[in-house]
Amino acid sequence: MAYPGFGAYGGYSGQMPGMQMTVGQPIPGAVPNMPHGGYSGYSAYSGTYSAAADPMWTYFAAIAGQDGEVDAEELQRCLTQSGISGTYSPFSLETCRIMISLMDRDYTGKMGFNEFKELWAALNAWKQNFMMIDQDRSGTVELHELGQVIAAMGYRLSPQTLTAIVKRYSKNGKIFFDDYVACCVKLRALTDFFRRRDNMQQGYVNFVYDDFLQCTMAI
Amino acid sequence: MAYPGFGAYGGYSGQMPGMQMTVGQPIPGAVPNMPHGGYSGYSAYSGTYSAAADPMWTYFAAIAGQDGEVDAEELQRCLTQSGISGTYSPFSLETCRIMISLMDRDYTGKMGFNEFKELWAALNAWKQNFMMIDQDRSGTVELHELGQVIAAMGYRLSPQTLTAIVKRYSKNGKIFFDDYVACCVKLRALTDFFRRRDNMQQGYVNFVYDDFLQCTMAI
Repeated sequence: MAYPGFGAYGGYSGQMPGMQMTVGQPIPGAVPNMPHGGYSGYSAYSGTYSAAADPMWTYFAAIAGQDGEVDAEELQRCLTQSGISGTYSPFSLETCRIMISLMDRDYTGKMGFNEFKELWAALNAWKQNFMMIDQDRSGTVELHELGQVIAAMGYRLSPQTLTAIVKRYSKNGKIFFDDYVACCVKLRALTDFFRRRDNMQQGYVNFVYDDFLQCTMAI
Repeated sequence: MAYPGFGAYGGYSGQMPGMQMTVGQPIPGAVPNMPHGGYSGYSAYSGTYSAAADPMWTYFAAIAGQDGEVDAEELQRCLTQSGISGTYSPFSLETCRIMISLMDRDYTGKMGFNEFKELWAALNAWKQNFMMIDQDRSGTVELHELGQVIAAMGYRLSPQTLTAIVKRYSKNGKIFFDDYVACCVKLRALTDFFRRRDNMQQGYVNFVYDDFLQCTMAI
């Protein structure tokens, strides 16, 4: 159900594992029809799926080691070695921690292979969005462009909230790729948290203090 | 009013500007009677207070420049040059951004002199807490010690929430000074946000999605 005034939680409706992605209504002036990093393909990794047959498995397993999971430092190594950042600077440890927290619902501080694959798909889509705006490959985009991307991803936010977000992730009046991704991950993680607690899908949640901190401090 | 089961919002009650600090009940096994970085002295900087007479003013003004405010990069320079981190590593830009967001209620992404002084007092108290545990000055403390410090600051959190927080701010199984401070600032900022919305001081808040994101994305 769409939230009055805020769309369907930023294009999240229908993005549960294994379901089709939906995209929010385009915003006038926004970059149109961009992919928005939906977690497609999740269901493919459950049940009968064999991780060993996946070309990424060997690569992931080498870094994950015996426990089959990566922590933030290992994820940073993994992503740097994979070259997913392309010509952009590798992800900071802080951004990798936020990535872990997006998937880490049992608070182990680690990420398994299935979650890694999910993240990988999302990162690629986010990167594509960024590159679509950063056409001269300067590594940064303008503040208002981040606002447009957020809107194009389907998040229906007030101008005040958009401004607060854009300010928070800027550096010297620009948005860098690493910060942009941190922003995307955090938006998704916080929306996920909120949505899981919004049983009636009405756009508001009654948070108890402890739960509020559990949600927000971990990200 | 104290919240059932969570104390008085982590020792925050009574910490409004110009009021006396209160400290939460000590927890068995926790570091006892530690200062907890209350924003004392806030009222001293309003009204007739003359910034120019403050020895820190010249120093702050040099970095703040014409607008009389510092952004995250300037704050980082300010704090590094001040040597407040002592033998510990200087604060990361990410931690400085969180510091800005703690004070930045109008979302300008900047901090004035009064807020800088407030922050300064809090940082000194937090540093003192950290040094009390890190007696060999290794620059890190153990995971369970962070949990103890949080409890000693008066935050009454469930074991699950404490675990989530401690995991989030650890690196190679240890807590570094910079991450510890980031954690303290974030805990205070999020508690401030929550508290301002909890009109009845009952320990729960009905968040609208947009407001929830505005609170949490900016930190």
